[in-house]
Amino acid sequence: MATRRLGLILSGVTGRIGVNQHLGNAVANFRETPITLANGDQLELDPILVGRNANKLEQIARRFNIERWTTDLDAALSNQDDTVFFDSALTGVRFENVRRALTAGKHVLCDKPLAPTHAEAVGLARLAADLRLKNGVMMANIWLPGMRKLKTLVDSGFFDRVMRIRGEHGYWVFEGNLRPGQRPSWNYRREEGGGIVLDMMCHWHYMLEPLFGRIRRVTCAARTFAPKRWDESGQPYEATADDSGAVICEVESGAIAQIDLSWCTRVRRDDLMVMQVDGSGGSAVTGIFDCLTQHATQTPSLVWNAEDRTATDYRAAWLPVPDLPPIGNAFKVHWELFLRHVCDDTPFPWDFSMAARGIELAEACYRSSANYTWETLAETS
Amino acid sequence: MATRRLGLILSGVTGRIGVNQHLGNAVANFRETPITLANGDQLELDPILVGRNANKLEQIARRFNIERWTTDLDAALSNQDDTVFFDSALTGVRFENVRRALTAGKHVLCDKPLAPTHAEAVGLARLAADLRLKNGVMMANIWLPGMRKLKTLVDSGFFDRVMRIRGEHGYWVFEGNLRPGQRPSWNYRREEGGGIVLDMMCHWHYMLEPLFGRIRRVTCAARTFAPKRWDESGQPYEATADDSGAVICEVESGAIAQIDLSWCTRVRRDDLMVMQVDGSGGSAVTGIFDCLTQHATQTPSLVWNAEDRTATDYRAAWLPVPDLPPIGNAFKVHWELFLRHVCDDTPFPWDFSMAARGIELAEACYRSSANYTWETLAETS
Amino acid sequence: MATRRLGLILSGVTGRIGVNQHLGNAVANFRETPITLANGDQLELDPILVGRNANKLEQIARRFNIERWTTDLDAALSNQDDTVFFDSALTGVRFENVRRALTAGKHVLCDKPLAPTHAEAVGLARLAADLRLKNGVMMANIWLPGMRKLKTLVDSGFFDRVMRIRGEHGYWVFEGNLRPGQRPSWNYRREEGGGIVLDMMCHWHYMLEPLFGRIRRVTCAARTFAPKRWDESGQPYEATADDSGAVICEVESGAIAQIDLSWCTRVRRDDLMVMQVDGSGGSAVTGIFDCLTQHATQTPSLVWNAEDRTATDYRAAWLPVPDLPPIGNAFKVHWELFLRHVCDDTPFPWDFSMAARGIELAEACYRSSANYTWETLAETS
Amino acid sequence: MATRRLGLILSGVTGRIGVNQHLGNAVANFRETPITLANGDQLELDPILVGRNANKLEQIARRFNIERWTTDLDAALSNQDDTVFFDSALTGVRFENVRRALTAGKHVLCDKPLAPTHAEAVGLARLAADLRLKNGVMMANIWLPGMRKLKTLVDSGFFDRVMRIRGEHGYWVFEGNLRPGQRPSWNYRREEGGGIVLDMMCHWHYMLEPLFGRIRRVTCAARTFAPKRWDESGQPYEATADDSGAVICEVESGAIAQIDLSWCTRVRRDDLMVMQVDGSGGSAVTGIFDCLTQHATQTPSLVWNAEDRTATDYRAAWLPVPDLPPIGNAFKVHWELFLRHVCDDTPFPWDFSMAARGIELAEACYRSSANYTWETLAETS
Repeated sequence: MATRRLGLILSGVTGRIGVNQHLGNAVANFRETPITLANGDQLELDPILVGRNANKLEQIARRFNIERWTTDLDAALSNQDDTVFFDSALTGVRFENVRRALTAGKHVLCDKPLAPTHAEAVGLARLAADLRLKNGVMMANIWLPGMRKLKTLVDSGFFDRVMRIRGEHGYWVFEGNLRPGQRPSWNYRREEGGGIVLDMMCHWHYMLEPLFGRIRRVTCAARTFAPKRWDESGQPYEATADDSGAVICEVESGAIAQIDLSWCTRVRRDDLMVMQVDGSGGSAVTGIFDCLTQHATQTPSLVWNAEDRTATDYRAAWLPVPDLPPIGNAFKVHWELFLRHVCDDTPFPWDFSMAARGIELAEACYRSSANYTWETLAETS
Repeated sequence: MATRRLGLILSGVTGRIGVNQHLGNAVANFRETPITLANGDQLELDPILVGRNANKLEQIARRFNIERWTTDLDAALSNQDDTVFFDSALTGVRFENVRRALTAGKHVLCDKPLAPTHAEAVGLARLAADLRLKNGVMMANIWLPGMRKLKTLVDSGFFDRVMRIRGEHGYWVFEGNLRPGQRPSWNYRREEGGGIVLDMMCHWHYMLEPLFGRIRRVTCAARTFAPKRWDESGQPYEATADDSGAVICEVESGAIAQIDLSWCTRVRRDDLMVMQVDGSGGSAVTGIFDCLTQHATQTPSLVWNAEDRTATDYRAAWLPVPDLPPIGNAFKVHWELFLRHVCDDTPFPWDFSMAARGIELAEACYRSSANYTWETLAETS
Repeated sequence: MATRRLGLILSGVTGRIGVNQHLGNAVANFRETPITLANGDQLELDPILVGRNANKLEQIARRFNIERWTTDLDAALSNQDDTVFFDSALTGVRFENVRRALTAGKHVLCDKPLAPTHAEAVGLARLAADLRLKNGVMMANIWLPGMRKLKTLVDSGFFDRVMRIRGEHGYWVFEGNLRPGQRPSWNYRREEGGGIVLDMMCHWHYMLEPLFGRIRRVTCAARTFAPKRWDESGQPYEATADDSGAVICEVESGAIAQIDLSWCTRVRRDDLMVMQVDGSGGSAVTGIFDCLTQHATQTPSLVWNAEDRTATDYRAAWLPVPDLPPIGNAFKVHWELFLRHVCDDTPFPWDFSMAARGIELAEACYRSSANYTWETLAETS
Repeated sequence: MATRRLGLILSGVTGRIGVNQHLGNAVANFRETPITLANGDQLELDPILVGRNANKLEQIARRFNIERWTTDLDAALSNQDDTVFFDSALTGVRFENVRRALTAGKHVLCDKPLAPTHAEAVGLARLAADLRLKNGVMMANIWLPGMRKLKTLVDSGFFDRVMRIRGEHGYWVFEGNLRPGQRPSWNYRREEGGGIVLDMMCHWHYMLEPLFGRIRRVTCAARTFAPKRWDESGQPYEATADDSGAVICEVESGAIAQIDLSWCTRVRRDDLMVMQVDGSGGSAVTGIFDCLTQHATQTPSLVWNAEDRTATDYRAAWLPVPDLPPIGNAFKVHWELFLRHVCDDTPFPWDFSMAARGIELAEACYRSSANYTWETLAETS
């Protein structure tokens, strides 16, 4: 059995997600159980860790039996035998890391967000296209069991004409005084890349457009409802980033998508994230794992009655889409598709271009919120 | 025991709501069990029915033992012994009816909407004020058990600082071909006063502002998702009025209210109408009858987990506000308060001025929807 | 990385709690994973065991890799390099041990009770203050998960005005004839420091005053309901200490706290120890682990009905305070705070002064029980 | 079948309890289905209604087919054919009504409280004894299903030596602003006979002493925790009567009874009223309907464990006393026993003497609360 070596530069995989997901669930996993390529070859991944903290790198390298590590990114990029670059470093340095990798001729996969601005993201997309380099961004929510079920509904024509979409995402994130916050404090500091609208609208973009079509216009009211929070060490700080956002998107089909984002809400719904889709043919409500449906023919004929308390449980008239065969860890799936895209040129739609479009949507949200406007998105990215 | 006679001109109480609610539950009820006024007098209501269809009027008059009826509105208005005018006629003629009644010196109570435009409604409010005539509009949702419970929460300070409000109203109204529609067809014809945004934003206005403060800005996407419907006689017609609306309101306190209205949605929530209020002190979710609460100290510390399906039922961490003592039929309550307002000069906040403000809000919604703008409401109505 | 040595004299840590908790969970634990002080130094604990039984000391020293042990307390105290003294010896010798340690210039932490009488405890508090020595007493119930949750309720203002507190502590402790007693026999001998009121009111003191304010007056009925018991070796003995106490405390805020203590009761409540707090804003019922709440707005409107058996489950209208992040073993937490208090001068409120106040409360209980009086506590301890 | 006529003067049975219970469930019931006396005679009740409001009396008389009614109490008392007097009039006039009835030679049954002071109640008891007149007071809680079950436990020797009793009575009575209070406003006005300690300690007296022996000493902290309330018409008023009381009673057997009374508490227990009895032989917890038991041999061996959260449900180890055969309405039972006492001289322990003792207990509670004392009750009443 022939093998094909692929030299992999892994930049900044030292955080919790980097180590557990990208290394543990994806790269290390593929070294143990290699991918078989189209021609039957086994793909042999040969990673090199790049980072700033030598101690940490050494420790992680040892844990995952990785022979190579370095704190010198340029040296790593200059090695012609390593052709794929992955970046999971801090948001602030990603644009520059990715730019250097592309310039050095590497195919690039990276975490979201691709770049701090739409313009810079578009620049990277063009650079990659010009250099004919493969490129991709992690878009993990696509592989949520609930989202996969929703996609089968869309693909099967269940909804007929999609009219309305409502997304809700969030839960109460404690301020950190009486009870620790469940999210890192940088999420609430604009200057460190925080903000629920920036974080989540990138996700909602890739969850919505591939299923329902391009977003034409958007308006948003982003707000900071909890202005004071306490950080990981118990120190108070001013929250400068938005913790809530009310968004209305107009899709080119005419459908309207309302997205309600908040870390200042209390959850009375099926899941921490929920998407309801109303079509002429039926409706669905999708969470992280489950997707419930009510077909047009199953729709109860309800009437307003303010005088008699009915015992009707409106939640009873919904049926779950049965579980799909598991595909395993989302990071592993996404990595495998990208590696096949690199080696076998199979399609990989979640590229820099789509990521740039997500950042465009988030930027339009902030612009519209600041100016009380509706923003029109570009026809082509 | 002394009695006080009150002559009451009832215009257009021939429809379902007019007969059952305004006549049956309110006027006829007060004739059987008279209201006792502040000075101990019993209030004796002496109604006269006014309408266009003599047959119908006679029938209704007989059913409710009403001696007087006429098809001549002017004649009725010229009787100086009848001092209160009530209008439940078609929306299209209300403005003119009310204007004539005021000009004839009558105190006026009427169904909503008060007038087809904000300007006309303000005109009626000014005319009534100039003539020092009592005036009021039906705002029945105030008396919903769920809304009364929500008000006790606001009054008790439960929410502390209100940050977010989300309203959802609606259900699937069948187009009328395969299954009859549950609402009258004029609701779907703009030219006859239809439109869910017009209908419902007047309600949401008086449900929101008294509890949470004045609405400063609004944006809306009103849409007609079901363009073809079939009427009461099975004939197809074009739906010219909006059947869905996505609304974002900015309250002067800084709170954001999102209102989701639709007759093209399928219900997966606690009730046909639901309002969630998120405050720093706690949250509540109110329906027509029930109001559920989750206090800040009872709020679970939730974290995103896309890998393990948890068995958490997010609906378990809510407790109902116990039922309040029943106050009886909402129409009867509203009528009684208006009659006391007329006879004893007790307060009645639901006047033409507040009704005009609701129409202003609805108009701003439509303007913003047509032009993709945010609209600023007047500081004073 | 610099280290700071701290010489630690451990007196009488030979019992179950001494070995498992003070040594195992606290001291030995901090030798494996040292505390990092404010200046970044690692705290290196160098303990010496002191006791009466050389065999036992040697055995324990070996088990925990402790190099030093002695049966000569004076010699240990004369070593100027050991600056902290801890006492877990028998209650009867604690006062003298602590007095000698203070006189020798040691900072002191010890088990409760600090001294057999309030006067002696106050004497130790004054001595420590005069010599400017750090001092503390174990108050482990503060760190119970249920008590920590209750504190967040108090801190968040949940209760508004606290009106009533009811504490219940106890369970049936078998007399020892038919079934062994679950507690050591000295607990039931007054002359050996037994008595549920002495034991528990010291706990309730530090559980109540920091949360609800100073106790102004107290009355108590302490009783011995099981006069004959059988000891660890099956020998019968006369129980000379109280096994039950009914206590009423008046708090300076005007709140009333009723404490019901008994080892002659059978448990029909949520936990072995339960505290209900009734405030104008809401109520809570706290046990060892859980804390349930009912907000004012969630309070059912109940009425007495002796004729119809209702199906109401009064326990359904309560919601738990969600779990707080675990802080680990209570003894470890208390020790760490004391060691930081010694090394970094951070606050440590659980000092001799507070412990003396607890003994004052217990003494007042006994005095009031003997004389059928209400006792007034000193304004300052 | 012979009949025996009994002339019955019913004074003040115009309130809700008077009409429904005393008339409907007792007197009217015995007129329909007469009691058979010891000698086989049927007892024929011939009542006369006495009150102040002629209209009301006439209406009630008609409803219950009672031929005689009057507003002249003296006239009624002077009729030698009517030998039994019953009083359910306002508390304020009861003493005088009863005194006059006794003086007129009538046997007397009345509602509680018998008199406003212990001295006056003792006076009535002595007067009745001197005149050899039968006398009784309503003590309805004795006939609660739960209390009847508890009595079977006492009678059967289940408890062996009773050591501790804990009574809890109460629930949250709303202040009346946001939600109406569930009790009449006079309950909260001292000057109108209000106060939870006065009301309830009379009940607890007759519930405790017949089962557990005479109360020797008592102390109490009566408090008004909700100083402002709103009355039946929505007007605010100052609450001058106690709404909470913490009571400790010492029983002559040596047992201690703690009674916790409050209209400012939220209910987390089995019933609105609960009594736990701990005996050497077993314990019981009684509510209005149910009585749960745990025998000494069923008592779990519990140990304090603050480190591991156990799943133990302490409520599982209790078993209900099965329902006793129903005896029907409590008022009917009490009346029947009194009527037999009058006609057949059967025993009736719930006499003026016992009622006076209950008032003595309540008075002692108030005295001890005002002066921070323990009060000793008289050896004989």
